[in-house]
Amino acid sequence: MPKKNYSDLQVSFGAHLQKIRLSKGLSLRALATRCDLDDSKISKIENGKLNVQLSTIVELAKGLDINPKDLLDFG
Amino acid sequence: MPKKNYSDLQVSFGAHLQKIRLSKGLSLRALATRCDLDDSKISKIENGKLNVQLSTIVELAKGLDINPKDLLDFG
Repeated sequence: MPKKNYSDLQVSFGAHLQKIRLSKGLSLRALATRCDLDDSKISKIENGKLNVQLSTIVELAKGLDINPKDLLDFG
Repeated sequence: MPKKNYSDLQVSFGAHLQKIRLSKGLSLRALATRCDLDDSKISKIENGKLNVQLSTIVELAKGLDINPKDLLDFG
């Protein structure tokens, strides 16, 4: 069975993440300092390049001070 | 920086997934047939062994006929 392509999903998640980050007035670096992720990884996620793991979703939510499920409230 | 341990998170997610699956009266195999995952992987997830990816969360939600964010409504 061919591996499914989740790039649309990754792009939607990344755009949603960026929208929330900007709505909180946080730079990539500011968000990175609030969670256990570096800014280059967050940038890749926002550009739809990564199929993030559960732990990353939870770290991002911690940095944004929101509930992890809010990061899946898109699409 | 030592790699953080997310096993508690994985166990909580797995238990939550199992609770929803059972509440819908679905066996592992039945759920597997409804989404692009095999039952052994779902079993590992339910036992907290895997740090699932975004695409897996979306596939599980499709199989359970729920919104992906409901799978993060735990803890």
